[in-house]
Parts: sequence; structure tokens; C-alpha cells
Amino acid sequence: MNFSVTILGSGSALPTAHRFPSSQLVSIHGGHYLVDCGEGAQMQLCRYGLPILKINNLFISHLHADHVLGIFGLISTMSMLGRKAPLHIYAPKGMQQMLDSHLRYFGEGLIYSIVVHELSCERKEVILENRQLTVAAFPLYHRVPTCGFLFCEKVPPRNIRKEAIEKYRLHFSAIVAIKNGGDLALPDGEVVPNAQLTYLPYSPRSYAYCADTVACREVAQEVQGVNMLYHEATFADDMRNFAVERGHATALQAAQLAKDANVQKLIIGHFSSRYKNVEVLVSEARRVFENTFPAEDGKVFLPESS
Amino acid sequence: MNFSVTILGSGSALPTAHRFPSSQLVSIHGGHYLVDCGEGAQMQLCRYGLPILKINNLFISHLHADHVLGIFGLISTMSMLGRKAPLHIYAPKGMQQMLDSHLRYFGEGLIYSIVVHELSCERKEVILENRQLTVAAFPLYHRVPTCGFLFCEKVPPRNIRKEAIEKYRLHFSAIVAIKNGGDLALPDGEVVPNAQLTYLPYSPRSYAYCADTVACREVAQEVQGVNMLYHEATFADDMRNFAVERGHATALQAAQLAKDANVQKLIIGHFSSRYKNVEVLVSEARRVFENTFPAEDGKVFLPESS
Repeated sequence: MNFSVTILGSGSALPTAHRFPSSQLVSIHGGHYLVDCGEGAQMQLCRYGLPILKINNLFISHLHADHVLGIFGLISTMSMLGRKAPLHIYAPKGMQQMLDSHLRYFGEGLIYSIVVHELSCERKEVILENRQLTVAAFPLYHRVPTCGFLFCEKVPPRNIRKEAIEKYRLHFSAIVAIKNGGDLALPDGEVVPNAQLTYLPYSPRSYAYCADTVACREVAQEVQGVNMLYHEATFADDMRNFAVERGHATALQAAQLAKDANVQKLIIGHFSSRYKNVEVLVSEARRVFENTFPAEDGKVFLPESS
Repeated sequence: MNFSVTILGSGSALPTAHRFPSSQLVSIHGGHYLVDCGEGAQMQLCRYGLPILKINNLFISHLHADHVLGIFGLISTMSMLGRKAPLHIYAPKGMQQMLDSHLRYFGEGLIYSIVVHELSCERKEVILENRQLTVAAFPLYHRVPTCGFLFCEKVPPRNIRKEAIEKYRLHFSAIVAIKNGGDLALPDGEVVPNAQLTYLPYSPRSYAYCADTVACREVAQEVQGVNMLYHEATFADDMRNFAVERGHATALQAAQLAKDANVQKLIIGHFSSRYKNVEVLVSEARRVFENTFPAEDGKVFLPESS
């Protein structure tokens, strides 16, 4: 399970008995990325046994209370747990000022640095890159500047086939050369191409997070072909007009977007508290895009393999 | 159950899988009083089915993050739920400025007023009084200005005894006069004193909340004889020196204070996250004060009757 998304909060602005506000932990090859941080995110991390101190990067979609209020407690907790590594926060403009304001009251004794990367929310930009993945921010369409986030695994190093090692009696130096992309020249002059000697251990996977936003063509373009898409579905489609007015999407619209963007799996969430049972939203979405699943606090989602 | 305390958070600064930070709901005769408001207090109110909008008064012991961070989400939620009535916040000096700072970011569209009553934390003062009770703030001894809160039921109106109505064939006007405290003059000149005709439906009860603080004589004096005392017990007594240094109490100290103050029932809480099982703290306290109970999130406590 080296690519997973754990839902920490699946509700919208009003918390309910079973849904915390927006937050999720994206875990890829041992790296842990917190996406949105509604109130109580740190308690959910505790409840689900997730590694608070291994979170080095925190992505905030927009500066509405239900996506951001959990940052402040989390920052204190990380300090009390002895964090030394810097914490990177990627968020729309305004985050730094908000954080400074908070730290004036609660920043005493903070023993690590917080690096805020403010995002334009106006164009797609790669905001983080490491050996395993890239994370890009792209514009969403809500009432305030809002970003979606796209996590893309890089193409992994190819593994060498056991059969090839045996068949060609490969020694260490030859194995290293092949692992580095080389072909194999046989004594008789024949060349075995690298692709025959190696295989991709997995196809690179991708995950896109879209909340809060109206569902529109621009978003569909950004998430084209992802293995897994989280898209907000605050309302059922009978509230389509109200949804647009509030900068939100309906379950049907999220599903149509997933279909148009040719994604493989759709998670819907950010449910309005008016839906005691979200079955109505799931059914509505599945009529258009069958591979739809509702976010539930504590649930872990894996991307479909390509 | 017209006098109860529901624990919303029983942990200290570091949340755990089972303990939210400090918060509790004191419910007395239909009035609901929130005491401290650590992160996630509003989610706990939802989880335990408690009436968020009926909270008109919020008491904050001190301005440390684990006692105050839940206010900001709660304020937004109350607004979204359509609150119109003003919300009164009683808290040490600094609360107004902190709130103003928060509302600059998240106060848009707030549809009710918030009245902050800043407390001196230097002397005992009655800060709220209504038909049923008084609430007093009194000094605690922590690292920053901190208040305890003392809830005292008023003496209730006396009820008239059924036997008296029958025996003296009392008419409506006589009943009203007796309920208002009058004696009964009989035709033969004999006077039946009010106390013989009426009874107290219950003895007034009291509840004191003490967190965070060292356990000291001054606190014991303030909570003398209460029916129920909540006192922090962050550590076991083998950490007594560290506790004092941090402005906290041990379970043994809390119990000794309860005994010295002649209280009837002790709840201990604000447990350090190092205690996976708080039995060690409870046992330690019960050796000195048997009627001790550990706070647990969601647990409801009733005061002992006098």
C-alpha cells in the first residue's frame, strides 16, 4: 500500500456526529502529505494511528475555516512532539499573515520553522518535486482563491527480470548497466534491448484533489486521466443552482466531470450536513460514473492500477 | 438530570486517540454553559447530541491553545446554524484581541454578536447570575493568568406540601401566599409557620472547575464544600516536581485538595498523554479521597446530593 489516501474529514463546513471538516492524508512511498486541515485533523491522525511527525508538507486548498482551522493545533502538537524538521505549508495568498497572527498568541516555544509557500491559484504550477512524485497546484473555482492538487508518481526505475539474469548468466556489472537503461550485447554480436530484460514494477499513478469548486471544463482538463479523483459533491443535483451560487458542485456534476476527464475512480466528499445518509449522492453519481465511492472519515482509498 | 457535567475533552495539550483537549458542558436547569473549548469541542457536542445553539455562555480558564482553539470553529458553526442571540465569552485578558484577530479572517457574515467579558483572574468575582444560579470566577495558579469557575445553584422556591393543602383545605390565594413565603393564619388564631407547610425540592448544588493549576491552599479555600469538583491531575505523584514547575497538579495532590476542601465528589482530568491507562492516577487519588472518578470523553457526571 505505497499509494493511499486516508480520509480524515469528509464533511463540509458544519461538522456532524460522523464527519469532521475537510482533511486527508496522502501517503506515497513513505512520504505523508496532508491535504487541507479542518478542525480536529490532528485528532483524526491520532485516532487512525497515522504518523503526525512524518508530515512535512501540508497543502491548503483555500482559506475557509473548515479547511484550515486544524493547522494551529497541529503546529503546537508537532512542537510538543519534538519536531525539528521544517514544515512546509502550500496555501493561497493570506496564509502567511494568518499564521503570523496566530503565532503571536500561540507561537511561544515553537522549536521548528514553518515555511509558507503562497500559491497564485491562477495557473497550474508544480509546487513540490522529489524522487517519487511531483505535486502540482491548479486553479479551482470557488468563492475565494482556491487550488486543486495533483499528485503524480514518477516513472519508477525498471526492475530486471529474474529469467534474464538466469538465461544470460548476468554478472553484477552487467545487471547494474541494464538497470541503468543499457541494452545487453551478447558475445555473438546480438543485442538484447533493455525493454526485454526489464519491466516497470508499477505504472505511475496519479491522484487529484478538488475541493471546494464548481465542476467545470477547466477542472476536467486538469485532472484528465488520473487514476483517482476526489471531487467535492456538497449537494444533490436538485440543488444545482444553489450549489453554483455557493461555488460548489453536485454529485451528478462531479460524476459527469469524472466521466469527461476519463478518470478511473471517483471519491466524492465534502457532503452538506443536510444529508444524514449520502446514499442519494452516491446513487446520483453512479448513474453517470459507476466507479464512485463516498468519502467516510477513516476510510482508506487506493488508486486503480492502470 | 437538571444538573450535569458532560466531559467533551479530558486530555491535556497533546490529543490522543481517545481524549480531546479540555472542554466540558455544564447543564443546569435547561441552561448550557461551555467550560473551556479545546480544538474539536464542537465535534464532541455533535457526537454526544448536545444542543450547540443553546450555549449562550462560554467560560475560558486561560488562553493556552488546548483550552481555546475550539472557539473559532464553534463561532462559525453557530452562525451557520442561524444563531441570533449574543454569545458571551468570559475569559482572561487578551481574549478580545485574539478574537478580533481571528474574525478579521473568518468573521465575514457572522450574524450574531459576541460579547467578551475579560476576567482579572486576581480575585473572586461573580461573573454571571440568573434565576437558577451564580457563576463565580476565582484565581488559579498556572503559568499564565488562569481562572477557576464555581457554579452554585440558588436556593429553589419551596414547594407546598400536598398534605398541607388537604389538611387546611387551602384555596388558590392561600397557596400563592404560602408559596411566596407566608405563614398560614388559621381561623382560631393559630399560626402555622411556612416551614411546616412547604419543603425544599432539592438542596442547592455546586460544581467547581479547576484547570490548569497547581493544587494549593488558595484553591482549596475557593472550592470549600462543593458537591462536585473537577480538578486537573496531569501527572502521577512521582512527577510532582515537574508538575509544579509546569503549573500543574498530580492526582494525589488533587485528591488531597478535595479532602482538605471537604468536597463530596472529585473528577480528575487533563491527563498527560503519557498515561495510556489512567488507572494509576485514579488509584493514587483514591488512596486519599475515595470518591474520585476519572474524566472520560463523553461521560456525564452528576453532583452528589447534600
